[in-house]
Amino acid sequence: MTDPVSLSADLIRCPSVTPEEGGALQLLASVLGGAGFECHRVDRGGIANLFARWGAKGHARSFGFNGHTDVVPVGDAATWTRAPFSGEIADGVLWGRGATDMKTGVAAFAAAAIRFVTETPPDGAIILAITGDEEGDALHGTTALLDWMADQGEAMSACLVGEPTCPNEMGEMMKIGRRGSMTAYFTLRGVQGHSAYPHRALNPLPAMARLMDRLASHTLDEGTDHFDASTLAVTTIDTGNPANNVIPAETRATVNIRFNDAHSSTSLTEWLQAQADQIARETGVTVDMRVTVSGESFLTPPGPLSDLVADSVQAETGRRPELSTSGGTSDARFVKNHCPVVEFGLVGKTMHQVDERVPVEQITQLKAIYTRILTRYFE
Amino acid sequence: MTDPVSLSADLIRCPSVTPEEGGALQLLASVLGGAGFECHRVDRGGIANLFARWGAKGHARSFGFNGHTDVVPVGDAATWTRAPFSGEIADGVLWGRGATDMKTGVAAFAAAAIRFVTETPPDGAIILAITGDEEGDALHGTTALLDWMADQGEAMSACLVGEPTCPNEMGEMMKIGRRGSMTAYFTLRGVQGHSAYPHRALNPLPAMARLMDRLASHTLDEGTDHFDASTLAVTTIDTGNPANNVIPAETRATVNIRFNDAHSSTSLTEWLQAQADQIARETGVTVDMRVTVSGESFLTPPGPLSDLVADSVQAETGRRPELSTSGGTSDARFVKNHCPVVEFGLVGKTMHQVDERVPVEQITQLKAIYTRILTRYFE
Ligand SMILES: [Zn+2]
Ligand SMILES: [Zn+2]
Repeated sequence: MTDPVSLSADLIRCPSVTPEEGGALQLLASVLGGAGFECHRVDRGGIANLFARWGAKGHARSFGFNGHTDVVPVGDAATWTRAPFSGEIADGVLWGRGATDMKTGVAAFAAAAIRFVTETPPDGAIILAITGDEEGDALHGTTALLDWMADQGEAMSACLVGEPTCPNEMGEMMKIGRRGSMTAYFTLRGVQGHSAYPHRALNPLPAMARLMDRLASHTLDEGTDHFDASTLAVTTIDTGNPANNVIPAETRATVNIRFNDAHSSTSLTEWLQAQADQIARETGVTVDMRVTVSGESFLTPPGPLSDLVADSVQAETGRRPELSTSGGTSDARFVKNHCPVVEFGLVGKTMHQVDERVPVEQITQLKAIYTRILTRYFE
Repeated sequence: MTDPVSLSADLIRCPSVTPEEGGALQLLASVLGGAGFECHRVDRGGIANLFARWGAKGHARSFGFNGHTDVVPVGDAATWTRAPFSGEIADGVLWGRGATDMKTGVAAFAAAAIRFVTETPPDGAIILAITGDEEGDALHGTTALLDWMADQGEAMSACLVGEPTCPNEMGEMMKIGRRGSMTAYFTLRGVQGHSAYPHRALNPLPAMARLMDRLASHTLDEGTDHFDASTLAVTTIDTGNPANNVIPAETRATVNIRFNDAHSSTSLTEWLQAQADQIARETGVTVDMRVTVSGESFLTPPGPLSDLVADSVQAETGRRPELSTSGGTSDARFVKNHCPVVEFGLVGKTMHQVDERVPVEQITQLKAIYTRILTRYFE
C-alpha cells in the first residue's frame, strides 16, 4: 500500500520549482501506473502535466482530483532550519518546500485513490489531473490538461482540488468558490510644462489622484450569499519625475480587484472604463487602460458535492468545515468550467514560507478523508 | 570706453557653468577696477562673488545693480550651431551660453556704470553685486554678497536686477515682483499586505490620491492687485511597487507652489500641514511632510523706482514696459529684504536653450537704458 507520508517526502526531494518538473510527475506516473492507472504526460510550452485515470474512460461517475507538484522558490536556503528539498521527518513533522502547498495533498489523494481502487474497485473512474504550472503563469498547466481531456473525451463528473484550505486547524475550512482577480493598468497623459506656468501644461497627476480616489472610495458590493465583499486595491502610482519645477506629461497606476459573483471581469472592465472616460472628459487628459484577468469568480453552490466533502471531513476530524470562498485564486477557476468543483486540503499556515512543514499525522488524516470522499461518492 | 558687446563676448568665453568662476568675475574686477571701482571678491563655499563700488561707502544715494555670471550647462555642445563658449558674432548676433541669461546684462550694466562715472561723476555711489551662483542652489551667491555688505556697512538705496525680462520685444516688460516658490515632499505610510485582503493592510495610496486631489482642487486665491493667481502643481507621485498582489506600505509625492503676496511660505506650510493631518485622521496613515522654500514672494509696489526704470526704457525703446510679477524666482527675492528692487533686461526667449543668442544692438540698447536710469536716479 502506498504510504502518503513517504510519497510526500519523495516528492519534496524532487526540486520542482516552477517550471521544473524535477522528477515529481515521473515519480507519480510510476506509482500510479504500478497501481493500474492509465497515465498520460500532457507537456505543453515547457511545462510537464500528468493525467492519470483508473477505470473506464468517459464513465458517468468519474471523480477527479486536481493538484500541482510545482512549488515556489525557496528563497535563501541558508535561512531554512532543514534543507528545503531534503524531505526530512523529525519529531513527527515533515519539512520542506511543498510540505503544505501541495505535494502532500497530491500524495494524499494519490495514496487514497490507489487504496480505494485496490481494496474496493468502484463502478466508475477516478481521474487525477496534476500540473507542474500552478505557481507560475498557469498558462500551460491545468488549462492544458483540461483542454487535452476535452479533446480526448475524458471528463470528470465532480472534482476536488487538494490545495491547503485550513487556516489553523485540520478540517475547519473547505472552499466552494473563490473570488475572481483582475488587474487594471492606467496610463494618463497630459502635456509637460513648467511648474510656474501650470495653465500652459496639462498635468495628468491631479486627474490620476481623482481617478484613484474615486475607484478606491467606491463600494463594489456588500458581499453576496456565499462571498465576502469584492475589494479594490490601488497597488502603485508612479511618475518618476525628479524635477520639482517640471509638470510631467505622464503617470501610471495599477489597480487590483478581487471580485465575487456579483461581478464579472467584463462588467468591472466596463465600470473602470466608464470611470476613466469620465476623468478624461473632466480633465482633458488621455486615459489608457489595459486589463488582465487572472480568473473569474466561481461558486459551486452548497449541495451534494460540498455535503459529501464536509461529511467526510467531519467524520474524520470531528469538525464541520466552514464553506468558504475566501483567499486568492486557485486552479478551481479553470475546473469550474467543466464540472462541480470544491477544494479541501491541509493547514496552509507555512505555505510559501521559509521552513514550510506539516505534522505527518495530518497527511495520514488527509488521505483518510480523501478515501472517505471516494467511498461515499461511489456508494 | 568699455564696449558692452565685446565685454559680453569676452564673458561668454569664460566657461563659468555653476559653480565654476571660469575667469568671468576676474575679468569684471579688472575692467571695473581699471575704471576706479573698489572691488572685493566675496568667495564662499566654493562660489566666487564680486562686489564693486564707485563712490563713497554708505552714501545715501547708492544705486545698485545685481546679476550673475554663472550659466546653466550647455547640454550636448555638438547640437549648437556655434560653439557655446566661443562668443562668436555673426550677422549682428552674439552667440553663446549666457548671451541672454545674463552675461550681456552684466556687461551692459558694467559698461553703463563705467561710462556714467567717467563722463558725469555723480554725488553718490554705484554698487555692482555680481554672483557666480544664481543658476545653482544660490546658497552662497547673492545672499552671501548681501550678508557681507551688511557686515561691511555697505548698502544700496535702490537696486536693479539685470535678468532678461522681455518675452519677445525689447522693452515690453519689467518685473516689480515675483511669486514665491516652495516645494512640499509628502511620504505616506500604512501597513503592507496582500491585495486579496485589503482589510488586513492599510494602503497609503487611496489616502495619497485623496490628499493630492484636495490640494490640486483647492483655489489658493484669484490673484492680487499686482500678481497672477498662486498655483500648485503636483509634480510626482511614486510608489515603486511592481507586484500587483501586494499592497505597498509607503508612497511619496511632491508638490510645488508658486505663491503671490496673499500668502507666505509659513501660511502655506500651515495649510498643507492641516490638509496632511486631516488625511491622517480620516485614513489612519502616517503623513510626513517636509517643506523647502526657494523664496518668498516679493513686490516693490509701483512708485518712484519703477517709474524711473519704465521712463528710461520708454525713452530708449519707445515702449512702456508692463509692470509684471510673472515668471520663476530670481535673486531679487534676496535683494528685496535690503532695498527697493526691480528687474529689467533683455529678451529672454533663448535662455537656457541650445543656440542661446542675442542681437548685438539689443546689448547696446540695454547699456543705453541702464545709463539713462543712472542719469535720472542721480539727477
Ligand atoms: Zn498551491
Ligand atoms: Zn539668470
